[in-house]
Amino acid sequence: MKLTKILTLGATLSLVSLPVLAQEADVTPPNEEIGYIFTTFMFLVTGFLVMWMGAGFSMLEAGLVRTKNVTMQLMKNVALFSIAAIMYYLIGYNLMYPGDGWSIDGVLGAFASTSLEPVGGSADTDLTYASVGSDFFFQLMFCATTASIVSGTLAERIKLWPFLIFTVILTALIYPIQASWKWGGGFLDANYGFLDFAGSTVVHSVGGWAALAGALILGPRIGKYKDGKTVPMPGSNLTLATLGMFILWLGWFGFNGGSQLYMDTAGNVADISRIFANTNTAAAGGAIAALILTQVLYKKPDLTMVLNGALAGLVSITAEPLTPSLGAATLIGAVGGILVVFAVPMLDKLKIDDVVGAIPVHLVCGIWGTLAVVLTNGDATLGGQLISIIIVGVFVFVVSAIVWFILKMTMGIRVPEEDEINGLDMAELGMEAYPEFSKG
Amino acid sequence: MKLTKILTLGATLSLVSLPVLAQEADVTPPNEEIGYIFTTFMFLVTGFLVMWMGAGFSMLEAGLVRTKNVTMQLMKNVALFSIAAIMYYLIGYNLMYPGDGWSIDGVLGAFASTSLEPVGGSADTDLTYASVGSDFFFQLMFCATTASIVSGTLAERIKLWPFLIFTVILTALIYPIQASWKWGGGFLDANYGFLDFAGSTVVHSVGGWAALAGALILGPRIGKYKDGKTVPMPGSNLTLATLGMFILWLGWFGFNGGSQLYMDTAGNVADISRIFANTNTAAAGGAIAALILTQVLYKKPDLTMVLNGALAGLVSITAEPLTPSLGAATLIGAVGGILVVFAVPMLDKLKIDDVVGAIPVHLVCGIWGTLAVVLTNGDATLGGQLISIIIVGVFVFVVSAIVWFILKMTMGIRVPEEDEINGLDMAELGMEAYPEFSKG
Amino acid sequence: MKLTKILTLGATLSLVSLPVLAQEADVTPPNEEIGYIFTTFMFLVTGFLVMWMGAGFSMLEAGLVRTKNVTMQLMKNVALFSIAAIMYYLIGYNLMYPGDGWSIDGVLGAFASTSLEPVGGSADTDLTYASVGSDFFFQLMFCATTASIVSGTLAERIKLWPFLIFTVILTALIYPIQASWKWGGGFLDANYGFLDFAGSTVVHSVGGWAALAGALILGPRIGKYKDGKTVPMPGSNLTLATLGMFILWLGWFGFNGGSQLYMDTAGNVADISRIFANTNTAAAGGAIAALILTQVLYKKPDLTMVLNGALAGLVSITAEPLTPSLGAATLIGAVGGILVVFAVPMLDKLKIDDVVGAIPVHLVCGIWGTLAVVLTNGDATLGGQLISIIIVGVFVFVVSAIVWFILKMTMGIRVPEEDEINGLDMAELGMEAYPEFSKG
Repeated sequence: MKLTKILTLGATLSLVSLPVLAQEADVTPPNEEIGYIFTTFMFLVTGFLVMWMGAGFSMLEAGLVRTKNVTMQLMKNVALFSIAAIMYYLIGYNLMYPGDGWSIDGVLGAFASTSLEPVGGSADTDLTYASVGSDFFFQLMFCATTASIVSGTLAERIKLWPFLIFTVILTALIYPIQASWKWGGGFLDANYGFLDFAGSTVVHSVGGWAALAGALILGPRIGKYKDGKTVPMPGSNLTLATLGMFILWLGWFGFNGGSQLYMDTAGNVADISRIFANTNTAAAGGAIAALILTQVLYKKPDLTMVLNGALAGLVSITAEPLTPSLGAATLIGAVGGILVVFAVPMLDKLKIDDVVGAIPVHLVCGIWGTLAVVLTNGDATLGGQLISIIIVGVFVFVVSAIVWFILKMTMGIRVPEEDEINGLDMAELGMEAYPEFSKG
Repeated sequence: MKLTKILTLGATLSLVSLPVLAQEADVTPPNEEIGYIFTTFMFLVTGFLVMWMGAGFSMLEAGLVRTKNVTMQLMKNVALFSIAAIMYYLIGYNLMYPGDGWSIDGVLGAFASTSLEPVGGSADTDLTYASVGSDFFFQLMFCATTASIVSGTLAERIKLWPFLIFTVILTALIYPIQASWKWGGGFLDANYGFLDFAGSTVVHSVGGWAALAGALILGPRIGKYKDGKTVPMPGSNLTLATLGMFILWLGWFGFNGGSQLYMDTAGNVADISRIFANTNTAAAGGAIAALILTQVLYKKPDLTMVLNGALAGLVSITAEPLTPSLGAATLIGAVGGILVVFAVPMLDKLKIDDVVGAIPVHLVCGIWGTLAVVLTNGDATLGGQLISIIIVGVFVFVVSAIVWFILKMTMGIRVPEEDEINGLDMAELGMEAYPEFSKG
Repeated sequence: MKLTKILTLGATLSLVSLPVLAQEADVTPPNEEIGYIFTTFMFLVTGFLVMWMGAGFSMLEAGLVRTKNVTMQLMKNVALFSIAAIMYYLIGYNLMYPGDGWSIDGVLGAFASTSLEPVGGSADTDLTYASVGSDFFFQLMFCATTASIVSGTLAERIKLWPFLIFTVILTALIYPIQASWKWGGGFLDANYGFLDFAGSTVVHSVGGWAALAGALILGPRIGKYKDGKTVPMPGSNLTLATLGMFILWLGWFGFNGGSQLYMDTAGNVADISRIFANTNTAAAGGAIAALILTQVLYKKPDLTMVLNGALAGLVSITAEPLTPSLGAATLIGAVGGILVVFAVPMLDKLKIDDVVGAIPVHLVCGIWGTLAVVLTNGDATLGGQLISIIIVGVFVFVVSAIVWFILKMTMGIRVPEEDEINGLDMAELGMEAYPEFSKG
């Protein structure tokens, strides 16, 4: 989709010369201008929904860590969102969408900070797409989402500053570079026929791979795996975790819906409607599958699994939220919910400690969702999807591992044992999240 | 409104044959297409606002139950929302909007699962309304809202699975069938001149009647009524309850505003604006009325009453948010706020145990709001409103009571006494919402 | 911007006579009508985002006060929002936007309650702007925001009813009168060239001045300043405070974006996009600046400072979110974040007790943001900005001080010492926010 955009951009910019915009009261907008307003406003609305996912991750993670680490988890989430905003402006956006300005053709984008259109728009604006500002705003939120995924996995033991430095590199370089390969019209898009509508791979699995590399190098929390058994460390506030899940569910309408990239015709807005409906039903499918499966397996349904099941459904439908029927979307989401229920204990068996279940949700279901594209979209090939998953996965995992390793060797990434036991909040921040409530 | 839609749909689908949608860059949308985009996008925006009400009910109810039952209340809310999504797709939507396909004319709709428009829209799309996907998405959220209302009343003593089975029947059958009578163009709409703009009766009182039937068959919580007195069982987290109220207030703009069903003309968008303003002021009127009244009656204003007062104002304005002036809307909401303050203790006198006050808010004010239509809309008659309230009420109450009764006789609907005292969270789910906080 | 609106309104209302709106299905909307729909819908969307800020302030403040005062803080926030809705309808809106009906030319607006357009719109509607209902809805939310700012500063010691009476006066008179001077086209707009795009002065500093007057007359909390030292009284729930910050960040897109006032052309929607992007990056700049600065100053980053840093960035960009580049917006926000880190302890040195830091955020950064307009907008003059800040500040501070003083002399504004120590929740409301959690 993005490729089309860039090609038409390139084509029309040179051919069309639009008249200066008329004054407000007298304006007689051509239909092309109306389409531009529709699509631009659509990006602003879907963009603020995706921005809101930053709050969702914060609440989900704050609710799933223990009390003594809540302030730290909040701090990381506010900071990573802010870092993403600045790094994507300084470097990421043009690295991801170089247009004709690739540094290495199809592989490495352009190095330049983002410039918005002039105030009042510009006479030579391409009215077939949307304003640069709205596109930047929307795409930035995807970059921030990727960073949000990492913070949950590594909670309760990682130091603040190394995590933030990793976030700088992730949002400035790792995410935009691999995203350019598909959405910037790079080699995965041009040569492999890779299809990933809204980012099961480009966003979610990328966050998952970066988290996995970190989890392996960081190691599990003290006492998590003892005598061959996994010690449960239940989240401190399931209400906030549930709120976080609902925020993410809401935000996902923007995430998938806005990825249609156009709302200028009846066909495009009808497609966005399909996407909203499919996104919703996939989440429902994931939640219900996890509900039933945990009832069957454990005799008691597990709320955190149901929350992660809904998120799994959402990740699973993200690579192709448009072509499935409502029934197919429900099933694709349900498979995601099932995968999560099995992946969580499997990770524990491998002694990979993922505090909030981000790897099962975003990596495992990100892969599933990307493969599932072939089920409903005839343009996708299993080979093209697989090779793209692998290329992106290897790149992100290896680069992330190198960065985590360098951070570990230089400044250290793990808090001292005593600080981990007492909680990161007092040790690293000197501030408790719930100072007045006594712990039982 | 809905009737008009269906009639025009039927008429135009057979008469009009539109050209295939042009490619994005070249499209010259006719004005009809612009109206279609406006209305469709309006449904998506108002629909996501109503979806967000699912989070509002979750937070409100989690905040108003006691700590030991919070996880269960969250589980129910996530599950019921997911069930509604799937059942409304499988059965509800076409049962509610059968078009020309009634099974029993004006009484029982069509049995078929929902099909969305093809990808890219369709050549024979009726451009005078909105995309099927957006309409389905919007209407689904009303079905989910109805189910949300029930869960609060029955909290702290009902088993999970019977509640979920009831939810299946409510969202697949009870809600869509009675909604078809009005919004599907059925007999209440055709023969009784029943007016219910956004669902004071069709949504809110329906949830209330289903909850009332459940409360009567389930019985009050252990210890709630003792020696002729009502024992207060205060909610565990008023901050989250307040958050829930604010979410519902926000979502209600979508609920009432989207029910205008068209945003293709200046007149329609001006009407939606009236609805937004009236909805807001009715909520304010309800909150202030409850604030002043509880100050006068009890010498101390009661926050939970103020929260329910705002919701009461919202329910009260829902049957007619368009025709009242700002002043009338404020007063209609204020009467709702007053009704709630009196209805809550009255229910307790009748030993009907409604944990969150859903029956006073949604049933009592749903009736009030439906009657209040005659105050500002000349097309409404007291007789038509009354008979419709009664018909819907008898249907929903009787069918719900039968379902609850069968569930009670077969699998049982109430947790064992010991489990109720210890809390449903540990007994039914084995998981506490706030495991680290000691109880005082 | 507002001035233009009123002038064109006056001009066109008398000249233009539009045909009666056609029926829905047959309508052929002229392009002017399309612009009207765009702008009106934009006000509804941005308006509901600003409404949502009411929830943000509630959560922020409930999270930053101590447990014993949480119910009171929630009550105040729900009540003030409701009061603002009613007072702005009864008095505020026409006092702020008198059009040609000034009581004292350019100084005191019109006294009349708000009338919305008739149902279905009106034949003589000016289609160059937006519906009255949408404009009222949007502007009302700014009035409510101003009142929200005051409640945080005065928390934990002020009585409920005097606070609410002050809110009545603030939202009915103080806010609308000074706002008319700029946005209603009054003397600050006409004679001083004052520029304040979305209200760094008109909204935020006004809330700040009213809060400052209250704080001085009310005095600090018992035990806050002891032996020349400031005693920390940490907030009870940083998760909810963080949630509140995210809600405000989200709502601010509506606050600043909607203040463009038009979305009828490509140029206007591109400007709104710039505003969204700049608003976001200013918040990020403020958060990161506070993060780094508290790390440097105190060796441990301070979450509450980071939250207030983000808000400071938002306030700072509010007077001019359009003209800055992304880089300039980031820096303007960052300076705001720095100012807050220094202003909070400075206020404490002056023994001005501001519970949530509202004066540093909204007053100090409101002034900074208003002055910063001259950095990127050639139409602004330092003199014009300064004199307007002073005129608004003196008016609001003096009138507020008089009102607070009268309230103190008559009904008293401070709770008895014993009630303050035990908490306002039990003393004034008889209801705890978290009744089951034991305090440590």
